[in-house]
Amino acid sequence: MENSFGKLFTITSFGESHGRCVGVTIDGCPAGLPLNEEDIQREVNKRKPTSPIATTRAEEEKVEILSGIFNGHTTGAPICLLIWNKDIDSSEYEKKRFLPRPGHADYTAFIKYGGFNDFRGGGRFSGRITATFVMAGAVAKKLLNLIGIEVLAHTIEIGGIKAKPKGLDEIRGNVEKNPLKCADPDAAKEMLQVVEKAREEGDSIGGMIEGTALNMPVGLGEPVFDTLEGDLAKALFAIPAVKGVEFGSGFSAAGKRGSENNDPFTIKNGKVVTVTNNAGGILGGISNGMPIVVRAAIKPTPSIARSQETVDMKKMQSASLEVKGRHDTCIVPRAVPAVEAMIAITLCDFAMRAGLIPEVTK
Amino acid sequence: MENSFGKLFTITSFGESHGRCVGVTIDGCPAGLPLNEEDIQREVNKRKPTSPIATTRAEEEKVEILSGIFNGHTTGAPICLLIWNKDIDSSEYEKKRFLPRPGHADYTAFIKYGGFNDFRGGGRFSGRITATFVMAGAVAKKLLNLIGIEVLAHTIEIGGIKAKPKGLDEIRGNVEKNPLKCADPDAAKEMLQVVEKAREEGDSIGGMIEGTALNMPVGLGEPVFDTLEGDLAKALFAIPAVKGVEFGSGFSAAGKRGSENNDPFTIKNGKVVTVTNNAGGILGGISNGMPIVVRAAIKPTPSIARSQETVDMKKMQSASLEVKGRHDTCIVPRAVPAVEAMIAITLCDFAMRAGLIPEVTK
Amino acid sequence: MENSFGKLFTITSFGESHGRCVGVTIDGCPAGLPLNEEDIQREVNKRKPTSPIATTRAEEEKVEILSGIFNGHTTGAPICLLIWNKDIDSSEYEKKRFLPRPGHADYTAFIKYGGFNDFRGGGRFSGRITATFVMAGAVAKKLLNLIGIEVLAHTIEIGGIKAKPKGLDEIRGNVEKNPLKCADPDAAKEMLQVVEKAREEGDSIGGMIEGTALNMPVGLGEPVFDTLEGDLAKALFAIPAVKGVEFGSGFSAAGKRGSENNDPFTIKNGKVVTVTNNAGGILGGISNGMPIVVRAAIKPTPSIARSQETVDMKKMQSASLEVKGRHDTCIVPRAVPAVEAMIAITLCDFAMRAGLIPEVTK
Amino acid sequence: MENSFGKLFTITSFGESHGRCVGVTIDGCPAGLPLNEEDIQREVNKRKPTSPIATTRAEEEKVEILSGIFNGHTTGAPICLLIWNKDIDSSEYEKKRFLPRPGHADYTAFIKYGGFNDFRGGGRFSGRITATFVMAGAVAKKLLNLIGIEVLAHTIEIGGIKAKPKGLDEIRGNVEKNPLKCADPDAAKEMLQVVEKAREEGDSIGGMIEGTALNMPVGLGEPVFDTLEGDLAKALFAIPAVKGVEFGSGFSAAGKRGSENNDPFTIKNGKVVTVTNNAGGILGGISNGMPIVVRAAIKPTPSIARSQETVDMKKMQSASLEVKGRHDTCIVPRAVPAVEAMIAITLCDFAMRAGLIPEVTK
Repeated sequence: MENSFGKLFTITSFGESHGRCVGVTIDGCPAGLPLNEEDIQREVNKRKPTSPIATTRAEEEKVEILSGIFNGHTTGAPICLLIWNKDIDSSEYEKKRFLPRPGHADYTAFIKYGGFNDFRGGGRFSGRITATFVMAGAVAKKLLNLIGIEVLAHTIEIGGIKAKPKGLDEIRGNVEKNPLKCADPDAAKEMLQVVEKAREEGDSIGGMIEGTALNMPVGLGEPVFDTLEGDLAKALFAIPAVKGVEFGSGFSAAGKRGSENNDPFTIKNGKVVTVTNNAGGILGGISNGMPIVVRAAIKPTPSIARSQETVDMKKMQSASLEVKGRHDTCIVPRAVPAVEAMIAITLCDFAMRAGLIPEVTK
Repeated sequence: MENSFGKLFTITSFGESHGRCVGVTIDGCPAGLPLNEEDIQREVNKRKPTSPIATTRAEEEKVEILSGIFNGHTTGAPICLLIWNKDIDSSEYEKKRFLPRPGHADYTAFIKYGGFNDFRGGGRFSGRITATFVMAGAVAKKLLNLIGIEVLAHTIEIGGIKAKPKGLDEIRGNVEKNPLKCADPDAAKEMLQVVEKAREEGDSIGGMIEGTALNMPVGLGEPVFDTLEGDLAKALFAIPAVKGVEFGSGFSAAGKRGSENNDPFTIKNGKVVTVTNNAGGILGGISNGMPIVVRAAIKPTPSIARSQETVDMKKMQSASLEVKGRHDTCIVPRAVPAVEAMIAITLCDFAMRAGLIPEVTK
Repeated sequence: MENSFGKLFTITSFGESHGRCVGVTIDGCPAGLPLNEEDIQREVNKRKPTSPIATTRAEEEKVEILSGIFNGHTTGAPICLLIWNKDIDSSEYEKKRFLPRPGHADYTAFIKYGGFNDFRGGGRFSGRITATFVMAGAVAKKLLNLIGIEVLAHTIEIGGIKAKPKGLDEIRGNVEKNPLKCADPDAAKEMLQVVEKAREEGDSIGGMIEGTALNMPVGLGEPVFDTLEGDLAKALFAIPAVKGVEFGSGFSAAGKRGSENNDPFTIKNGKVVTVTNNAGGILGGISNGMPIVVRAAIKPTPSIARSQETVDMKKMQSASLEVKGRHDTCIVPRAVPAVEAMIAITLCDFAMRAGLIPEVTK
Repeated sequence: MENSFGKLFTITSFGESHGRCVGVTIDGCPAGLPLNEEDIQREVNKRKPTSPIATTRAEEEKVEILSGIFNGHTTGAPICLLIWNKDIDSSEYEKKRFLPRPGHADYTAFIKYGGFNDFRGGGRFSGRITATFVMAGAVAKKLLNLIGIEVLAHTIEIGGIKAKPKGLDEIRGNVEKNPLKCADPDAAKEMLQVVEKAREEGDSIGGMIEGTALNMPVGLGEPVFDTLEGDLAKALFAIPAVKGVEFGSGFSAAGKRGSENNDPFTIKNGKVVTVTNNAGGILGGISNGMPIVVRAAIKPTPSIARSQETVDMKKMQSASLEVKGRHDTCIVPRAVPAVEAMIAITLCDFAMRAGLIPEVTK
């Protein structure tokens, strides 16, 4: 396993879905940043399940700071952030431990870790692990704020319903107003119906999230291997259920001509900008100062109530599986804060690598 | 810059498009692997430009082994592989050094490196740098061969023309038979026409490449951060012009139900397999034994003959640019060996991390 | 700050001397290793201060496992180990926060972290941080045990009193029997007197620790940069107060001839061994199968009761300082478990890199 | 093998003693630094063997820059530096390939790499590999020069003859004036006699090197694991024959009292300094602004003309070995530039981590 990410701003995630806690340490955070539990809690609260999209299981997620803060400021030492898990009934998982859910990591984890993996609630492969990303992302966002970078994520598609493109003010204003975290209120209503229908049919449904970073400096990214696209993509694929990542015109660029897809340069207010942003703010793996635009495809969550074909790994024979208990019909909205967090963490690391955030912030 | 990739099988790329050479060192290759220049040359030759798709400039790319091989075998020491550049006329680049090509890294490199970057031929941002990936990939492929893994890549779309899905034998047999590196000969003909048309119009055209890895063991991938998807994506985004990466059902999963997208498990010849492969061979960031299926979107190359709007970075005023000289109309086919190489390098690293390739091979 | 160590067996230390806790996460530990809190507690207890050598402050150090263990075995997931700090009076530190102790990190930490560092009890620079090393070392030792490697450390010199060389059985048997952790009981008595005297005079005293690793396989170490010596030395210098590290004949080799210092090879029980062990078990940065022998010089702890010259960093003027409170007169014995731990952690990482410890242990 | 060192200023060494070349790539060097082959050659020339200390084999070491420099400045791209090896007679090594030299890496390399290692001239374990360190060190020294840091190394002991402590001007002035690279001309003469005697007796002789870094800023070092001592020690142990490393009062601190060993703080010219420098310029793993003082113990080179006991690894029986050919009687002076280089490389990396050297230098 490799549970650390970032070269200078390095996070290390630990904990399991049904273990004692989930937590994260952040190493490399500059000293002098004002930081308290409320700063982290605010971001973590965005993960709260909202009926009827997600499980109504009330996971209270109270953040504790274990280290790295003194007199209300970061100290330069590693920051450990923790959420204790509440007592959770894992009996359903015990019963089905040899029946891997199709589409889930149950099978690969069982084989890779010789059956020793903590399978309860998906263990390390649970969406709950993204709470550790969100905690670290809260710190990254505060650091990015020092240099003016703002990171936003929102749902742009669920179950085939696409949101209309919206301006920044609408994104900022609407995302937390509907349970879909969608900036387009009309699309959100339709999405809700689609989700509701899937839920009634014991099924789940996928979607798409768009992330944006604004006020980007020119020069973030360290090619040829640590490109901005490459590290952002890697960061996003750490979120369970992400199966595709694209930047700017992305997959649609495959069908375009250079004359359409190239973004002409021009000068605006004394600065070089591009007229369009098909590049999604990245040229040659380096930020060009335009907004970063990245989209992540989220597959439908594998845990569904419908009967599915699987195998009994102990008896090595076919079996059928019905997943019981409360499961999210659509995890897309709850992945939105994780997308935001992973973008922030990645940009923060690159900003530090480019020397934009000093060892001590004032 | 970060020009190294891989944790145990680590490659370090160096060199520039119009500098003295392009090269790569490979650190961590086990001792005892038979390896000669022909093994590398064979892969590098797949990058040869083929008329009329690409530039007819005859870049002779002769591979030399500088270190790490003794008596025809790897020694455990770092392997340095090099291709000397031929004398190339860079005068066109000198003339236009302050006129960044829209869609190209010219602008971001100029700003990031304070104007000191070697801009000739794109320098480090040239497609030519992928020759270093292909050289390292040749070694990775030989190592993967020891454990039975085969990596294949082929063009599946160019300029909106999609190839029909083909079987493995057709992919293996057809890819090197047409200049498009497309397994579907009929589609290849159509693609050729589209490319021809774009060329005549002084334009360029994008496409899509699919990579596959066969005979995969279960268990490659080191989540939560070094997922198989994440590291493959990062590897592929190092190839200039890649703007999107997806696995299995990828972006189409966003519109699917769980009951459609989940791959049911079953038993075949005493082994657990999945009936479908929407997961692209990866569950929870770990290989599940099914073929890896990954697709990369390639944007149209930015260098086009048509006049484009840009800025003069010295005078800080608008300017227009016509890129002269021979440029590839469609770089997709030449990116195919690079995709294959980056997949092989990534899988090789994960195979070593999983202990499947020993320090000394016999 | 960089609070992670190890490439495949990676530990990340966090926490402060007077903060809420000290803790460590271990990433890369194979699944299937039986592990409980008692395994860790046993090692941590070796750090207990023993009168009259050390402070009599009763730091109760109770280990808790927060993650990575399920049904009494490691799961392959990161293991988080924690010790909660008890309420400690930090008022003395508050009073003297602008008066750096000579020989201590107070000054460098103040400057590097802009005065935001948690100075109470030395913060991250306290010997207490080595409790995190010892916790991780307990896991490393269990893993090394699987391949037969045993790590031992003991005090060989304090305040000029040198212990006589002792056999392994005496080392194993005597070290925990005296408060000096010295294998030579006679020397231990003398050392005790020297320590007692220094204590009475309000002073502190240094010493030397020897670490040994037995039943070493041939082949651990990854030169040219990750040599066994290099990484062991780096590991040991993480222990506060270590100012020198040597292997085998070490510094005395500087005065020797090759004919004296070379260890002749011979065959014993069908195995190649060396007649002497001036190399300390390492040739070319790689273990040669003989016992690893490494020695660390420990400077006298800087916190002494005697008046010392320092500066007032706020007023920028000279000042005098008398360190109050209970401080160890000699930290050497309490550093012994830390030396043992850091050797074990380093060897464990190299054993994993050499493929000697699989992903799943049985 | 791990042939890369440094986190932000990363060098990757390759090549073998009797292979085609020895080389190094430097990744992370800022753009804009004036650099030409002469800058590198000057440092490499310091490695020249000088009669009668070392082999009179005239190894011409001509440096070539393969990449990373454009118009006389660094570009931000990886810099590849190379020295081609001349044709060398390796027949003696072929004859004795199964007879490992006592004290040499012959044995461990043979076992670790399954006999596939390039044993000719010691391959990767030759002192010749330090030429790659010296090349990279030349670049590091130029970067350190930008922030005023100067690195010096000199021989302080050979064969029991100790040099008298000398001032900086004498070190700067004398080191290149005698074949011992010793700042004390009188000691140098005595050392020469000792070396001469050892040579006549077919033996070799060890010694000690001291490295110093001047004009240090406060704050280099990233504890708890990447301490300045730890990384400097690791860097120095990469030099073949180094068996001990100490800082400031080092091993002598083991016998000292705190009141003797602590360096009192005082104010000088408005700056906080220490009255003594027992800490060797490092407190808590972080530079305190005083000169760095580090010493490395160099064992006598294992290749001696005298007959030695070894084993025939093929026949697995005892054998005797007389090493023929020209070998250095004392490698200490030739290790001096390597010590200087490794210190410079390490400090340069830490300076970049502390944000003291920007991405583009002017």
